[in-house]
Amino acid sequence: MVKRNVGKEILYLTQDKVIEAGINDDDILQLVKAALTEHGSKKYEMPSKIGLHPRENTLMHAMPGWVPAYDACGIKWAECFPDNYKYNLPQTSGLMILNCSETGWPICILDAIWITAKRTPAVTAVACEYLARKDSEIVGMIGAGIQGREHVNLLPKVIPNLKKIKIYDRFEESISKLISDLQPKHPNVELIPCKSFEETVRGSDVVVSATAILSKPEPQIKDEWIKEGAFIAPVDFDSLWEWKTFKRADKFLVDSLDEMNYFMGVGYLANGLPDIHAEIGEVVAGLKVGRETDDELIIDMNIGMGVEDVVIGKKIYDLAIEKGLGLSLPL
Amino acid sequence: MVKRNVGKEILYLTQDKVIEAGINDDDILQLVKAALTEHGSKKYEMPSKIGLHPRENTLMHAMPGWVPAYDACGIKWAECFPDNYKYNLPQTSGLMILNCSETGWPICILDAIWITAKRTPAVTAVACEYLARKDSEIVGMIGAGIQGREHVNLLPKVIPNLKKIKIYDRFEESISKLISDLQPKHPNVELIPCKSFEETVRGSDVVVSATAILSKPEPQIKDEWIKEGAFIAPVDFDSLWEWKTFKRADKFLVDSLDEMNYFMGVGYLANGLPDIHAEIGEVVAGLKVGRETDDELIIDMNIGMGVEDVVIGKKIYDLAIEKGLGLSLPL
Repeated sequence: MVKRNVGKEILYLTQDKVIEAGINDDDILQLVKAALTEHGSKKYEMPSKIGLHPRENTLMHAMPGWVPAYDACGIKWAECFPDNYKYNLPQTSGLMILNCSETGWPICILDAIWITAKRTPAVTAVACEYLARKDSEIVGMIGAGIQGREHVNLLPKVIPNLKKIKIYDRFEESISKLISDLQPKHPNVELIPCKSFEETVRGSDVVVSATAILSKPEPQIKDEWIKEGAFIAPVDFDSLWEWKTFKRADKFLVDSLDEMNYFMGVGYLANGLPDIHAEIGEVVAGLKVGRETDDELIIDMNIGMGVEDVVIGKKIYDLAIEKGLGLSLPL
Repeated sequence: MVKRNVGKEILYLTQDKVIEAGINDDDILQLVKAALTEHGSKKYEMPSKIGLHPRENTLMHAMPGWVPAYDACGIKWAECFPDNYKYNLPQTSGLMILNCSETGWPICILDAIWITAKRTPAVTAVACEYLARKDSEIVGMIGAGIQGREHVNLLPKVIPNLKKIKIYDRFEESISKLISDLQPKHPNVELIPCKSFEETVRGSDVVVSATAILSKPEPQIKDEWIKEGAFIAPVDFDSLWEWKTFKRADKFLVDSLDEMNYFMGVGYLANGLPDIHAEIGEVVAGLKVGRETDDELIIDMNIGMGVEDVVIGKKIYDLAIEKGLGLSLPL
């Protein structure tokens, strides 16, 4: 149905208002699961992204998505400029435009930074439910940046027997800061600082790596450190992992084959990919099987998808309208 | 240089403010020429567009562009929903986001409808300068919608000996409205209503067609009606033209081969394209030759490019900042 004032005005939501809309971690898990289900069932439209690169090592990505079941339609335009610390600015930025699916007119412009930070670990978390051993007790978290923090925040929700999260980052102070900030919120899980990749990976049932994505990988994690039956989520592609680990995985999944092909086309994943068991959405949708035995090595490599963004964005828009949040701008 | 308040706030410009910024037809011709020169010289980044199609026959297109010489960087997100008349809304809508090329942060959100309406005929007009006979006196304009109006407005600026514009549309009242609106602005050019394609095309030195773009062309314009030495600008692809006209052209140009390949990939231009003489930008940049003799049939088929949009958008942004226009929004 065409909403009131479509074509006349548009809602603007800053990051503060996006957060104020009030979706919590459980909502995000559920929305990401919803988006993955639609993706796995092929009930969506999401051409693979295109981008600009105004400076060396920078990227600006156009990520449109249309998910009919949630009437979620729009585009995320997100940027990553690693040298922004020189200007005292975060490296990632981004806006989302949501559109009325009946008329095409834009209905909302909203911050996309918070959504990106939240939905990426949510995909890992949903994947854990289907791909990690049910008795997993130890997580190894590599990278203590924004993604590391959000992963540590979220994983206790989906790993019922979780006892420890071991955390490693090349900057020791990032580890201590993460632990002092988040330990109080997770009294039943011990957050443990590590001094090496090896210490983090050995004995971990689930390993997540969220460092920089490198076009020339620098594998640092030795295959022999990996525990039998582990689930691995390399949010940073093949940057840290040995190719033979990818190759020997019993099941190798991605979120979007289209997106992986895009990234291969622009110079990432130089070794290609092993045989793909499924897109994670197909598992969430029940169309492909997840973990079957306790000794399988399962790897799910996700990059994040526009369909996740627009489904979450649309929910935030609906809540903002309901609560009267944001600024109404004339068109 | 990173501008004041980048990463903290963003300028919002409605269509009114975009117009109030004050760029006129001459500015637009000059800016489009600048964008074409950079495009022809390959000093730009513009991946071919991607899109969504939430309803039958609708489209939403993501068009990023980066033109270093003008520090113009951003994306146009534009929609066309032909059934919008049912909701009393124009069929085309669109916003542009401009970004700081040094940090990636968004600096401006602005209406893109006005820019699209203006820059499309400007490309035809610039093409006329290089590809039409210098002594052209008669233009045939097919289609009296927004594009038809803007073409009639602009072409007298670039065709020095222009005496008549013959105008045809399947809706007779669109023709009379266009003529009664625009004749007073162009006292030296006679605007003539036509009753058929044939009447419009026969004897015209320049023919522009700007009707709907059809995936299944319905050629209506007979090849034998075309005057020797004519210049043809089919803004609506092959929808109205016989393939043999395209095939026998002495020079056939497009604005962007990448874009044409995109459209062929999604089902347009089913007959393909004849040999391409040049991209129009290459001619504007002086890298390829334009019209050489008076008897050449020259066709230039343009779809519009993101590089044109961002160069114009950036100029509007600069003027708006200078004049203190628009609303400053927090991020």
